[in-house]
Amino acid sequence: MSQSSPSSKKNALRVDAEALAGITRGPLPASRKIYVEGRLHPGVRVPIREVTQTPTRSGHGPGAKETPNPPFYVYDSSGPYTDPAATIDLRNGLPAIRAGWIAARGDTNELADVSSEYGRQRAKDPRLDALRFPRRRAPRVAKPGGNVTQMHYARKGIITPEMEFVALRENQKLVSGEYGAQHPGNPHGAVIPREITPEFVRDEVARGRAIIPANINHPELEPMIIGRHFLVKINANIGNSAVSSSIEEEVEKMVWAIRWGADTVMDLSTGKNIHETREWILRNSPVPIGTVPIYQALEKVGGKAEELTWELFRDTLIEQAEQGVDYFTIHAGVRLAFIPLTAKRVTGIVSRGGSILARWCLAHHKENFLYTHFEEICEIMKAYDVSFSLGDGLRPGSIADANDEAQFAELQTLGELTQIAWKHDVQVMIEGPGHVPMHLIQENMTRQLAVCHEAPFYTLGPLTTDIAPGYDHITSAIGAAMIGWFGTAMLCYVTPKEHLGLPDRDDVRDGVIAYKIAAHVADLAKGHPGAQARDNALSKARFEFRWADQFNLSLDPEKAKEFHDETLPAEGAKTAHFCSMCGPQFCSMKITQDVRAIAEEKGVSAEAALESALAEKSEEFRKGGGELYR
Amino acid sequence: MSQSSPSSKKNALRVDAEALAGITRGPLPASRKIYVEGRLHPGVRVPIREVTQTPTRSGHGPGAKETPNPPFYVYDSSGPYTDPAATIDLRNGLPAIRAGWIAARGDTNELADVSSEYGRQRAKDPRLDALRFPRRRAPRVAKPGGNVTQMHYARKGIITPEMEFVALRENQKLVSGEYGAQHPGNPHGAVIPREITPEFVRDEVARGRAIIPANINHPELEPMIIGRHFLVKINANIGNSAVSSSIEEEVEKMVWAIRWGADTVMDLSTGKNIHETREWILRNSPVPIGTVPIYQALEKVGGKAEELTWELFRDTLIEQAEQGVDYFTIHAGVRLAFIPLTAKRVTGIVSRGGSILARWCLAHHKENFLYTHFEEICEIMKAYDVSFSLGDGLRPGSIADANDEAQFAELQTLGELTQIAWKHDVQVMIEGPGHVPMHLIQENMTRQLAVCHEAPFYTLGPLTTDIAPGYDHITSAIGAAMIGWFGTAMLCYVTPKEHLGLPDRDDVRDGVIAYKIAAHVADLAKGHPGAQARDNALSKARFEFRWADQFNLSLDPEKAKEFHDETLPAEGAKTAHFCSMCGPQFCSMKITQDVRAIAEEKGVSAEAALESALAEKSEEFRKGGGELYR
Repeated sequence: MSQSSPSSKKNALRVDAEALAGITRGPLPASRKIYVEGRLHPGVRVPIREVTQTPTRSGHGPGAKETPNPPFYVYDSSGPYTDPAATIDLRNGLPAIRAGWIAARGDTNELADVSSEYGRQRAKDPRLDALRFPRRRAPRVAKPGGNVTQMHYARKGIITPEMEFVALRENQKLVSGEYGAQHPGNPHGAVIPREITPEFVRDEVARGRAIIPANINHPELEPMIIGRHFLVKINANIGNSAVSSSIEEEVEKMVWAIRWGADTVMDLSTGKNIHETREWILRNSPVPIGTVPIYQALEKVGGKAEELTWELFRDTLIEQAEQGVDYFTIHAGVRLAFIPLTAKRVTGIVSRGGSILARWCLAHHKENFLYTHFEEICEIMKAYDVSFSLGDGLRPGSIADANDEAQFAELQTLGELTQIAWKHDVQVMIEGPGHVPMHLIQENMTRQLAVCHEAPFYTLGPLTTDIAPGYDHITSAIGAAMIGWFGTAMLCYVTPKEHLGLPDRDDVRDGVIAYKIAAHVADLAKGHPGAQARDNALSKARFEFRWADQFNLSLDPEKAKEFHDETLPAEGAKTAHFCSMCGPQFCSMKITQDVRAIAEEKGVSAEAALESALAEKSEEFRKGGGELYR
Repeated sequence: MSQSSPSSKKNALRVDAEALAGITRGPLPASRKIYVEGRLHPGVRVPIREVTQTPTRSGHGPGAKETPNPPFYVYDSSGPYTDPAATIDLRNGLPAIRAGWIAARGDTNELADVSSEYGRQRAKDPRLDALRFPRRRAPRVAKPGGNVTQMHYARKGIITPEMEFVALRENQKLVSGEYGAQHPGNPHGAVIPREITPEFVRDEVARGRAIIPANINHPELEPMIIGRHFLVKINANIGNSAVSSSIEEEVEKMVWAIRWGADTVMDLSTGKNIHETREWILRNSPVPIGTVPIYQALEKVGGKAEELTWELFRDTLIEQAEQGVDYFTIHAGVRLAFIPLTAKRVTGIVSRGGSILARWCLAHHKENFLYTHFEEICEIMKAYDVSFSLGDGLRPGSIADANDEAQFAELQTLGELTQIAWKHDVQVMIEGPGHVPMHLIQENMTRQLAVCHEAPFYTLGPLTTDIAPGYDHITSAIGAAMIGWFGTAMLCYVTPKEHLGLPDRDDVRDGVIAYKIAAHVADLAKGHPGAQARDNALSKARFEFRWADQFNLSLDPEKAKEFHDETLPAEGAKTAHFCSMCGPQFCSMKITQDVRAIAEEKGVSAEAALESALAEKSEEFRKGGGELYR
């Protein structure tokens, strides 16, 4: 057992002020942040990234012409960090933009002290002074008997500022292009409207088809929505372990992940000082933070699953809920009876939460306490508006185990629990696999929609093969793209380090970009209104040799530019009508432009040419007896 | 126009002996090459990679037990370079293993000199002495009126040594595992047999559903097959351009690409000394080499497409056929009438070949000379057994242009040309797109099978979005995996540098591995017999903490080990029952093993547990009125 990791010494009990000040800041190239203001709720200011474009140049010398290209607008999850006008001090946390909305609802009380026993212990421990986030705000909780979930408001017909915020954020009318190619529509369910209205958002939340994870103790949050009639979202996991990484590193990983497009971040820390790390992350996070509370509960009993109790777990839920965690992974579907179904698997139980609970169930020969106490958990969730992410503790960990009885038995239970949560107006999403070969992916989505009553699906990949450790961001982006198309609402990223180690900065970026790709290609295939506008804008820039625009409109402008510059570093090459692949005389894009010019010169207008070509083709068809296409 | 590329000075007129000697050699970790001998043809020796595994350890201390794991066998495209017993001298080339087979057929003549005028000029030019491959062998050609294609033999009922070679190579009986998960079978066509016989190979080649690219002037070739009832193959592109790279670099790129699993290599050189570079590559390549002859033809006319002539092109085909090129991309489907169909596209014509021919057609207002001379091209192809790769010169270069009229009009023509080629017993595959969103991918495959009479499909990606330059190995691996599942026989790789620059060594590796993933996940989804065995073996190793085996069974053992070692470099960690993700006390795999142990201890055998769980579940069903799954 090796404790000689080079990074283990980083866990010294202090927060490094220098590292905090060095947080990644500043906009992406050619970008600035603009804000769209709410109409129903004046305090609503939705951040959007505006990418400026250079003009299209045609001709040379004195006859040269410039046609301007409009700015392009991109959904922006990066928070104030990319706004040079924002003041960022991690020791203060982000501005509490939701505080007024929450207070105005008048349905919560401010607490004098945290309710969790463990939380109080940590707050008092002088050894943690140097680690603790310095400006803790008093936690809020629903008034006795109250319910503060977005679902509760939605079902009462109330459009909250959070709902208006996400409606504006999702609205593809902002995007400059139009949806071009033919498409079969969303394979499961209603057509996505061209304009996302606050009322549409409210309706989707009310029927449980979408969730807005937004704990009342996370007022720094810029609200976002997870549901299959909205843009497909991605989650990035961060978190220290017993072996590696520090608080400053984890906060930077969060900021780094949202910079590249992570829509939510899960803090999966399992090492020391989980409580304090989480506080730093939450106070500085503009995106929802999810956790798996059983990880911390296990820490509290020294890693001995058998010693877990409902009381200890309950205290952990309250501790985290009062910090502001927006969604909890709860493995309530790992029932005692299902555990033996995994015995013949190639890889047994691979979910950490699933295996902890399986061990507890077997050791006590009792039903999973998360299952037996599920209604009590709902009571906690609705007092803070923490959303359920019902965990798939029995997800397959290998191709051989995909879509087996254990997996689907648990899914069935998650469906039953969804209905219980909805009885309490608690928001729910359902976690999904895992490792699944391509031909078995669709069944996952179809079953999930059927047995979980259309609650949003949130899948880890799935990985479509087991044989490529080191490249599992790719094996899983394939599965993620497909299941996103079929209707999964959020995709949990997988980094190249999956199965091998903890992701570093480069791995987080690689994982996030791979998943932005998966989410976007799913949006395209679903026919999401406006999704193709970015493809069209980038391809137009590419075709017109507007290299800088091609970089700036891409998911990773810095990488694109860096790759281009490896072969052609000169500034002049950025406007050159060729690139290093083919050289100056050989570029197909250039030749096509010449083809167009020749066609124009010979008087072959696009329309006329099309017509004459079609006529010729139909003549051919006739001659061929109409058999050509058989 | 920048000529200041840092690598342009590498094109000095000499071959660097030191670089040649430094070619990448040696086996992958824990691997050795074995050879399976033919039965019909004693000279047939098929290389296979054998990966040894460590034993499974259970228990600790004196009660510890070791159970051996069998070696695993992997399809091996890497050639003699990974066999330490082989003597490699790039100046001699690889052994001509097919020379005896070709000579024994008695249907070819050896030529005193090359037939191509250009080839003769290059051979005589003293300025090229230092560049030229030193041991040129006399070219062969079919006896007058003869036909030396594998299809021709197949249709006469002859099983060639090449056919037996590929049958043994494809045979999944060698693989130690069995196919596990349920699967819907190959979505288009016959079920793949469990044992690939030489007769099955012959039959597939005879009906044109598979090709064995194997020019009689490429005797160094280890034959392989491309067809949808065989393992999905991948191609890697290499080639210098006017801006970058040298002969030694290109040879090393080929060796490097096949080391990681490229099944064929296309030499797409467009710069100086294309003829000489190609000779070096062919003489040292154990995999089929493809080219796009129009690239070199264009070089010969100084880049002026209008000046291309049939005679010059014909001489280029013969020049390359006598060097041993195994397949030619021929853009004969870019017909004059189709060109205006591209005028309204976002990205026009993006195929280099397509744009060259479009320019020629428009400039002369004449039909494409490759189309009008197609039967004469067939005559050349059959005299050397060069296979057609019918080029998709009008493939879409952006999501907006996918599946449009121009693309499908050309595909239709390629189907007509296939029938002409087959009349001559010339082998054919069909090139496909390009940029296609997920929901439009299947239509490509369905149409191709219908209009091209089941000739193998060979696609570039497709890329499923335009917005991720720098990551197009990923955007396209998604499309490649899907179209491979639907029936595409070979996938042309895309590297991270696509659209941005020429791939370097790391890019080639990244591209090849991304495509090995796509090909393998397609094999899995098609239910290819034996494909899942590798997933099962690796997952078993993972579950049993056999770290070294997990690395060694993966597509890139070096990367997997390197990633693992970043966090836990100690040798001891390679047998540790945990990893850096969760730390020693927290590993789900470890907990599951404990779960199994507890289950065993309590007398819950796998079978009994399963039964009792099922009984309990069915009881639940009954109580629920059988409505639980609705």
